[in-house]
This record gives sequence, structure tokens and C-alpha cells, in this order.
Amino acid sequence: MTLNMPKRTFAMIHFTFLAENDCLSSGITGTIDAFSVANLYWQAIMKNTTPLFTTEIVTPDGKMVKTNGGIMIMPDRAMADITETDLVVIPGLFKPFDIQGKRFAQISEWITSHYDSGTRLASTCTGTFLLGRTGLLDGKIATTNWQYAALFKKSFPLVDLRINRIFTEDSGIYCAGAATAFMDLCLYFIKKYGTSELAKNCAKSMLVDHDREEQTPYMVQDFWKNHSDEIVLNSQLYMEDNFSKKISINSLSQDLGLSPRHFKRRFKKATGENPLSYLQLLRVEQAKKQLETTQKSFNEITWDVGYEDINSFRKLFRKHTGMSPKEYRKRFSWS
Amino acid sequence: MTLNMPKRTFAMIHFTFLAENDCLSSGITGTIDAFSVANLYWQAIMKNTTPLFTTEIVTPDGKMVKTNGGIMIMPDRAMADITETDLVVIPGLFKPFDIQGKRFAQISEWITSHYDSGTRLASTCTGTFLLGRTGLLDGKIATTNWQYAALFKKSFPLVDLRINRIFTEDSGIYCAGAATAFMDLCLYFIKKYGTSELAKNCAKSMLVDHDREEQTPYMVQDFWKNHSDEIVLNSQLYMEDNFSKKISINSLSQDLGLSPRHFKRRFKKATGENPLSYLQLLRVEQAKKQLETTQKSFNEITWDVGYEDINSFRKLFRKHTGMSPKEYRKRFSWS
Repeated sequence: MTLNMPKRTFAMIHFTFLAENDCLSSGITGTIDAFSVANLYWQAIMKNTTPLFTTEIVTPDGKMVKTNGGIMIMPDRAMADITETDLVVIPGLFKPFDIQGKRFAQISEWITSHYDSGTRLASTCTGTFLLGRTGLLDGKIATTNWQYAALFKKSFPLVDLRINRIFTEDSGIYCAGAATAFMDLCLYFIKKYGTSELAKNCAKSMLVDHDREEQTPYMVQDFWKNHSDEIVLNSQLYMEDNFSKKISINSLSQDLGLSPRHFKRRFKKATGENPLSYLQLLRVEQAKKQLETTQKSFNEITWDVGYEDINSFRKLFRKHTGMSPKEYRKRFSWS
Repeated sequence: MTLNMPKRTFAMIHFTFLAENDCLSSGITGTIDAFSVANLYWQAIMKNTTPLFTTEIVTPDGKMVKTNGGIMIMPDRAMADITETDLVVIPGLFKPFDIQGKRFAQISEWITSHYDSGTRLASTCTGTFLLGRTGLLDGKIATTNWQYAALFKKSFPLVDLRINRIFTEDSGIYCAGAATAFMDLCLYFIKKYGTSELAKNCAKSMLVDHDREEQTPYMVQDFWKNHSDEIVLNSQLYMEDNFSKKISINSLSQDLGLSPRHFKRRFKKATGENPLSYLQLLRVEQAKKQLETTQKSFNEITWDVGYEDINSFRKLFRKHTGMSPKEYRKRFSWS
């Protein structure tokens, strides 16, 4: 007797994209174009005339919006006119800072009510800030554009931000990292709702590599100085000027007239990092620059940035970049 | 005495994007979003309030167009209302087949008159078909979406198509390959009109790798059968069924009742390839599939696809994919 395995069935998935003034429309149009390619292959492979993905664009009031770069997009309808959809996508906003105000309060309510009734959510790039504002991400895993990691942590401390990830999924909420990370999420959806074979065809068709899991390699560390603690700021500037020498955090705190414990607490509060890991990040960042722009050996670079033990610095480098110095140089040195 | 080298000056570059019904708008919006990021960095680095890139969207008649996937875009103006611009960009068309008709004749005239007065041109993805139609590419180097290579060659035999390239430049005409290849062209423009440093910052900011020069690795060979030569079609089907065995083109032509010379000529006329290179392509394609989906060694695969000499097949494989079997497996095998 053989078991009768249920045959996998495929349903049509409906995506709703929220376009808003100043949003990065490429996250919307790029996803819709990718889904068109998926549908084309799907219908050819499956001998099926039903598309796998259907899409629509909404705006808060159903009127045209002026997206980043002055691109004017006319939506299919107003967000309130959607009764049922499978997934709502929030694209990045070019400047994610100003999401207070009445219009965003309405968007936030609309997102929440959809999520509460079972609709899944996705954000791309800085769109995660808008999801953060709803509170739905509190206690959940998320990612966003790596350049806004520090701001995101400050704005939404209850979210479990995994900034290294190129996309995340938690309880029906998907987040993609910076800019083109939406393509990685697209391939994930095409694989999830279609098949692995379909996703592979689409990746080749669109010249996309499928195996990116991290935005870590692309990240340039953000050294947060937008705070009002002058003593901490002075210590940051001191480290920036002297990272190539031996720096003792204890001596540094004494020079600043603080106990090491007090200094560490204030440093962490102002910058989000411990002094020691801040110094490590500075050194890794300097090593990345040297790998990108010089022909120096990693041994020389290790010395230049204030380390003596090449092996421990190599480990640290891998931890923060996701790759070896050699791999990093190959990928990021420009002619 | 030292020579006074003239300091490089930077001018603002104006890009005009032609949006048309059924075009792939992601090539437009993605480029505009990338240029916004470039402007942001530019203004931060250069302490300069002038943006490096300015952009606008036009349509044939100045009216809204419905691009691929039903995305409605309102242009800034009609194409005829542009008096001066630096570069006109033609995005891909979802189905590049139907570019005859009056509307495309007008577009073609408009493109030509801009080129004649010194405006540079760029096409992304299948937009190259529209540039092909103008005749401006005749005798020039171009690329397009690799999936339409055979159709392009048939439609525009005078164009020097370099389908392996991810983008090309010849006499002020730029072409980008499939889908996301426009990002590679964007980085090129950012480097050309800005600096290498600026392009690097943008690449990291948008999670884009900068070192892609070929679309070859992504290509799946197109085995052209859309012709009316039944004898050639039979020989194609025979090769597809028997590529794992030894196949002699001479015996095959005799079996089909043709002289080898006559057979080769007819085969080439119908498919665009010689019978022998067609057979090689079939075998390389089969090897790619096996590398993607099995754990077999390249030695075993070489035998499976009808070759005996692993070294010569390895060479052939590299010629057609731009990488070694090991690199290919690493990049394209999916879990």
C-alpha cells in the first residue's frame, strides 16, 4: 500500500501596494514587474491560464500621489475600498523621519485592521518605519534599510531588529532591507506561492542572484553622533583620531573624569553601543576602506587599525561583514 | 614648473524617460530612485546643493499611460514638448513584438531627431527593440534581454548584438540587458557623471553588486524552433533526444537525405546556429541543469551529456557560461 500524498494545490495570491507621496515607487513597480514575469512562466509551465499573482495599487484617498523623484502614480482605488486582500505591501519612504501626522495615523489604523483580520503585511526598505509606527512589530523580528538602523532602534526599541538580514518573516509580517532587497523578498514569495523551479527561472530571467541572505556585506557602520552628551561625543572623536593606537577604555573614562562603569552606561545610552564594540566597529570600518582602496595585505591593515593579533581581527572582521577579508576585497574594490 | 591640470568640473545631467503603455516601469522608477540616492550622497559629499541628476517622464501624447501590470503613470509632459535633454531612456516593453504601427513610428522619429541633434540614448531590457526599429543601431554594438536574442537577431540583422554583455555603449547609445541590468547601467552613469566613490556609496546603499559585466551566467539557451523547415525541426528533435550518444552531423544529414553542406546551410538559416554548435549548446544546457539539480561530479555529467574529454567540455562550458562548473553550481543550485 502506498500513501496517497495530497497533491499541492496553488491558489491565486492577491497583493495590495500602498503608494504614498515621496515613497520609493521602484519597490512597487519592481515587485509588480517581477510578478508579471512569474505569471508568464507559470502559465507556460503549468499550461494554466490563471495567473499566480494579482496586484493592485491603492493610495490613502484614492487620488494620484507624487512619489520620490516626482513620479506621479494613479492608484486603482483608495485604501479604504479594499475589502479583501492577501498581502499589503508598504514601500520605503525616501525620508522615513516624518511619519507622524494625521495621514499616517489613518494609514497606520488601516494597516492594523487588515492585519487583525488575517491579511499578511510586507514592508520594503524604510517602509518598516511605518510598520514600526503601528506597534504590530513590537516583540517581532524585523529588518530595514541598514542606513537607518540606529534611528529605527531609537524610534522602536521594542522591535527585535535584525539589521544583518536581507529580509525577515515573523507572524505574517515580512520586512525587506535596503532598496533592491525587495527583489530577494519577491523571489521568496515566488518560491513560497509557486515553486522553487519557478523562482529559479524568474531569477535568471531578471538577472537576479538568489542566494543573498544578508545585507551585512554592504553595510557601512553608522557612527551615531546625533545626541547631546558632550563627554561621550568627545570620547567618540578621540577614538576616531586614535584607533590605530592602543586604547584602553578604562584610561579613557578616567581621562574624561568618569568611572568606567558610568562611562560605559552613558556611552551606550547615547550611541546604542558599548565603547569597546564601538572601537571595534571603527577599526573594522577602517579595514574595509583599506581593502577597498589599497593593495595592502590584511596583515598590514591589521596593524594599521590598531590590532596586533591578525587571527582575532580576522574573526572580528568576518563577524561584522559576513565574509573574509579576501572575499570582501574581491567584491568591493573598485577600479 | 608643474603643469596646471584642469580641475574636473561636474555638470547637472538631465535624463528624459519615455513611458509607454505596457512598458516595464521598474526600469524608469528604479533609475530615478537610484539617481535620488546618488543626489543625496552627492550633495552631502560635495557640500553642494545642486543635484547631479535631474529627471522627467514623458509619454507620446502627454497623457497618462498604463504600464505593465496595470500601473498608471502620469507624465510630466508630452515627448514633443522636450526641447533639450542630455539623455533619452527607452524602457523595456513586456512583449517587444508589436512595435510597428503609427504610435511607434512617431516615437521612432522622435528618438532619431533627438539623436541627430546630439542627445544620447539608452534602452533597458527589450527597449532595445524600439531602438533597433529606428535603424540607429545598425552597425553598432548593442545588447538586450537575453531571452529575446534570437528574435532580435532575426528582426535587426545589421545590429552587432553582444548578448553576453550586461550593458553596451557605442557612439552615444547605451543598451542594458534583461530586467535588473538597468541597475548596472545606473551605476555606470553615476560613476561617469559623478565619481567612482559616489557610485560605490550608492551600490552599498542599494545593496547592488557593482562588478557584473555579463548576462551570460543567467542565460538559458533559446533553442529556436519557430521556423517552417520540417527537416531541420526533425534534426533538432533528434539531437534533443540523443545528445547523450555520439552524434555525427554527417551521418545525420545523410539520414535526412541531404548533403552535409546543404543540411548545414538549411539548419543555420532556420535556427541561426550551425548543427554542431547547436548540439554543443544542447549539451551545455543539459550540464547546467544537472549542476543545478544533482550532486553528480562534472566528470559524470560530462559523460551523461555525450562528451568523453572532460577538459574540452570544461572549456566549452566556460565559453558558454562565463564560469567554471564549480562556480556555476555554487551560484545556481537551489535548495
